[in-house]
Amino acid sequence: MRTIFYISDGTALTAEAFGRAMLSMFPVKVEHKTIAFVDSVEKAQLAVTKINAAHAASGERPIIFHTFVSLDIKRVITSSEGSCYDFLDYFVEPMSAELGIQAQPKTHRTHGIQENGVRDSYDSRIEAVNYSLANDDGSNIADYDQADIILLGVSRTGKTPTSLYLALHYGIKAANYPITEDDDMENLQLPKVLKHQRHKLFGLTLEPQRLHEIRSKRREGSRYASMQQCRFELQEVEKLYRREAIPFLDSTRFSVEEIAAKILAETNLERHHY
Amino acid sequence: MRTIFYISDGTALTAEAFGRAMLSMFPVKVEHKTIAFVDSVEKAQLAVTKINAAHAASGERPIIFHTFVSLDIKRVITSSEGSCYDFLDYFVEPMSAELGIQAQPKTHRTHGIQENGVRDSYDSRIEAVNYSLANDDGSNIADYDQADIILLGVSRTGKTPTSLYLALHYGIKAANYPITEDDDMENLQLPKVLKHQRHKLFGLTLEPQRLHEIRSKRREGSRYASMQQCRFELQEVEKLYRREAIPFLDSTRFSVEEIAAKILAETNLERHHY
Repeated sequence: MRTIFYISDGTALTAEAFGRAMLSMFPVKVEHKTIAFVDSVEKAQLAVTKINAAHAASGERPIIFHTFVSLDIKRVITSSEGSCYDFLDYFVEPMSAELGIQAQPKTHRTHGIQENGVRDSYDSRIEAVNYSLANDDGSNIADYDQADIILLGVSRTGKTPTSLYLALHYGIKAANYPITEDDDMENLQLPKVLKHQRHKLFGLTLEPQRLHEIRSKRREGSRYASMQQCRFELQEVEKLYRREAIPFLDSTRFSVEEIAAKILAETNLERHHY
Repeated sequence: MRTIFYISDGTALTAEAFGRAMLSMFPVKVEHKTIAFVDSVEKAQLAVTKINAAHAASGERPIIFHTFVSLDIKRVITSSEGSCYDFLDYFVEPMSAELGIQAQPKTHRTHGIQENGVRDSYDSRIEAVNYSLANDDGSNIADYDQADIILLGVSRTGKTPTSLYLALHYGIKAANYPITEDDDMENLQLPKVLKHQRHKLFGLTLEPQRLHEIRSKRREGSRYASMQQCRFELQEVEKLYRREAIPFLDSTRFSVEEIAAKILAETNLERHHY
């Protein structure tokens, strides 16, 4: 199997994003390896040893996605037996011409926090994470005035991971509120605490079969996990969303990244982090 | 100010990563806008209207980072007044030659969950998030056998956001355990529950000034937030890390992305998600 290396003098997150997008175009099975913080020629030589060893072991040329500020370090990597790709190669010059300024490469600018103003944006992101944790699963409803968004849904429809992703990735204060049997499912009304927050509500739902699978992993054979119960709860909660004009999303086929991006696309939520 | 657009038929996360990395090379202030899920010619025309309006408003040509599977939609975007960059343009052909297979562009492959096997990797990532939440802040210590890593540190040194990031981004089951005054700071020992988990421990620390600032936001003027107390706690916990040979990191200058990447680089933690 071919080995893919993501190598950088920083976190390698950019090289990973670039490589993952490239590889998504090709139906090929590969093994992934990240070598981050390669910030000296010695470390680069060590990386080259690993690249060449992977080549020798599989007989297939490894593919290298890399981003480096230092040309000296970059040269060591491109001297390896791997097939090397640096997406900055083709774009820095046209971009420089368009902006009318010279590039000033600097390590750790992409995912770092040392730039002017970036510390504030970073702190507000961490504050959002703390907020979302404190407002997970209907706890702490006193703080809903501060919420940027409140996710609604029955148990196990993805509210918690979505809230945390919105907070971590975008700095959005996302609370979430579970609709449970205490809310009288037979005659489901919008819970009182949410009535004044209607404009912040966003519903999540799933296909009954998927919810049944997820709940069965948690409590196999229970009434809670039964197809009948899952179907009933989802049907009632979707009726509620429609009646109250709460925007909602069936997340069955989406990852947490996609759910979060869709919520941003469908609401006017302001991102506090780019 | 120049407007930067990130546009895609999917989440636009790849376009954002590409654009952010490009822009990090240039010291320039810009405004960011994302238009995700542009999956029809009509939506693309709407995006073009926004691009051209931004041009008219600022007098500066917007910069567009885009990724599209459909050439028809892409053509609409590149017909706008913006300066357009698609990083796939330059790389698909050489990559295709290297792999010996044709590209098979497909929407939602990068951040989707519909591919074979991807659902399992995705589910294990969500399981890791649930694990990290249940094992936040020293709760639920009975489950430490299942942990991939246990983060240690005094209050407000970044344990929780780091655990959640490790879980969400890499599918790593990250627990965290707070060192508090209950642990007898004057004579700090490794807490008993951690003795059998020593190989999983990773410490976090901060500069006293930074911890003082963070704690002051929470409880201004308290003993807990005082410089003296912060300095004392950090000094004692660092002594503990050294004595017990626990790897640790001063996270003062790092973002949660960088902390997580550094932990991966310094341990042999296996990622469950790429």
